[in-house]
Amino acid sequence: MTKKVILTGDRPTGPLHLGHFVGSLQNRVKLQNTGDYEQNILIADMQALTDHFDQPEKIKENITEVAMDYLAVGIDPSKSTICVQSQLPALPELTMYFLNLLTLNQVERNPTVKEEIRQKNFENKIPVGFLIYPVSQAADITAFGADLVPVGADQIPMIEDTNFIVRKFNSTYKTEILKEANAMVPENFSRLVGLDGKAKMSKSLGNAIYLKDDTDTLFKKIKQMYTDPNHLRVEDPGEVQGNVVFTYLDAFDDDKKTVQELKDHYSRGGLGDMKVKKYLYEVMEHKFKDIREKRTEFAKDISQVQQIVKEGTERAQDITNSFMLKIKKSMGLA
Amino acid sequence: MTKKVILTGDRPTGPLHLGHFVGSLQNRVKLQNTGDYEQNILIADMQALTDHFDQPEKIKENITEVAMDYLAVGIDPSKSTICVQSQLPALPELTMYFLNLLTLNQVERNPTVKEEIRQKNFENKIPVGFLIYPVSQAADITAFGADLVPVGADQIPMIEDTNFIVRKFNSTYKTEILKEANAMVPENFSRLVGLDGKAKMSKSLGNAIYLKDDTDTLFKKIKQMYTDPNHLRVEDPGEVQGNVVFTYLDAFDDDKKTVQELKDHYSRGGLGDMKVKKYLYEVMEHKFKDIREKRTEFAKDISQVQQIVKEGTERAQDITNSFMLKIKKSMGLA
Repeated sequence: MTKKVILTGDRPTGPLHLGHFVGSLQNRVKLQNTGDYEQNILIADMQALTDHFDQPEKIKENITEVAMDYLAVGIDPSKSTICVQSQLPALPELTMYFLNLLTLNQVERNPTVKEEIRQKNFENKIPVGFLIYPVSQAADITAFGADLVPVGADQIPMIEDTNFIVRKFNSTYKTEILKEANAMVPENFSRLVGLDGKAKMSKSLGNAIYLKDDTDTLFKKIKQMYTDPNHLRVEDPGEVQGNVVFTYLDAFDDDKKTVQELKDHYSRGGLGDMKVKKYLYEVMEHKFKDIREKRTEFAKDISQVQQIVKEGTERAQDITNSFMLKIKKSMGLA
Repeated sequence: MTKKVILTGDRPTGPLHLGHFVGSLQNRVKLQNTGDYEQNILIADMQALTDHFDQPEKIKENITEVAMDYLAVGIDPSKSTICVQSQLPALPELTMYFLNLLTLNQVERNPTVKEEIRQKNFENKIPVGFLIYPVSQAADITAFGADLVPVGADQIPMIEDTNFIVRKFNSTYKTEILKEANAMVPENFSRLVGLDGKAKMSKSLGNAIYLKDDTDTLFKKIKQMYTDPNHLRVEDPGEVQGNVVFTYLDAFDDDKKTVQELKDHYSRGGLGDMKVKKYLYEVMEHKFKDIREKRTEFAKDISQVQQIVKEGTERAQDITNSFMLKIKKSMGLA
């Protein structure tokens, strides 16, 4: 039986944070360890350049940062393939063929991209590379022959775009070489909120805890966490809903009973913010200490990390180049 | 002294016709034979797919047709590099990086593309690949390190687009790796009119004489040529201006004195259309017979033609791949 192929990855615009951990990293480790999948993890530096074209040094630097995060959380290069997008020339090549199959209107209609354009205030200065990044994602997904793409619910339009291209390509070139991919949306998927409680955790919003944060930084960030702004005196009842400290306890503390007791106590009054924050710190320190230490070890031997990425990338080159050759044959161009 | 680099080429959507011969082929042979240039001739099959995405077989087939036309008119593979775009993965790769440097508005503003979109009746169904083909041309030009691009005056906006990208790339990545190209517009450039006298010669308008046309076809096409519709009787005065037979005599007959005498005779009356057409046939047969015969020889040994194209393409792969590596280094990605 052939294993199902997974394609997943990240844009290397910064080191990874707990939002990545909750939303994808821990899931990747779990999927990897079932042994049921061929998992490819793409460090999407070309895609990162679509809206960071003037910061290539930052992106280059973060390729290694992201790779260290992967290794630290337990991605095992003997089980998963870690690779760098810009070293896989088959991907832009395939993208160019896909771009002939879509009209400008279709590309402009993608709701995820529309929303991102709004958020980034591009207005009438949308870089073409950014506008078409879903097409480049379709090339990533299909070039690896991915059956499954783990995504948040908000990313489903991306997979639909990919499958539209798959069908259009196959019918145009009378082939079955491309296969449709399925979104793999985790049950109860939700994005981890940032320290400020306002939005999802994100580097650009400055509300993130990084996997590489040391213990002092972790404690400092937990101290800044948004709680109940009306909970002024310890003896007052406090609000648990929307209180980031409790959101994080729900996310990271396996001792659900204690969490429930703390919530009850906080709600009826008599439990100070600082006390709960210290407890959260203990929980998170326990959960992330090993990861951080592993990461520190890798950081001492960057060339080893780069060698791992190089080997994964070579494996990915074999996969994508031989697929591209088949694509060209299916079009009669090779 | 290093030779100036030229990039030129054609979309392989059909065999080449006399419009190509007058507009570019004879100029390429001349430039080649000066020995002053490194001339690269790109058979732009990827670009042909941008508006012929559903006809890959036709494009594949015409790669060899176009190559035979080149060889027949005197392109010498030991002096000029004939190569196939789809076999040069550095070109789509470079295109993708360029696409980050341009906004959608800038791409939509290109007057040549605007006009083509109008002509092709794309309306709101513009394939993205087609819309961005000037960016892919910029990648072609710069990846070959071209100093000079022979074009018609109407193609100058394409070179301006390329040079915009060159400047933007160099300033963004603090490099001088890309160089601006110059349009090489022939003096007295004009496009050869088609048999119908209505528009430039073009395959899609069905008004073309092909280099591969045999002598009977040539004669038949000359017989159909648009002359003066009011020149009903031999003894009547005829109009030379806009009369395709005389336009072609101007283009192909080196004996300018005889052409002038014929024009005078036709204008004052007493010279029949058929007589001038027969003369034109003699002139063209004389001019194109050798080319046609050379082409027939090549057509007998297609594998030799394909070998020539393969070797040229390998040379072009070396040029463009090593350039792409430099590009990535300049961006810090390699």
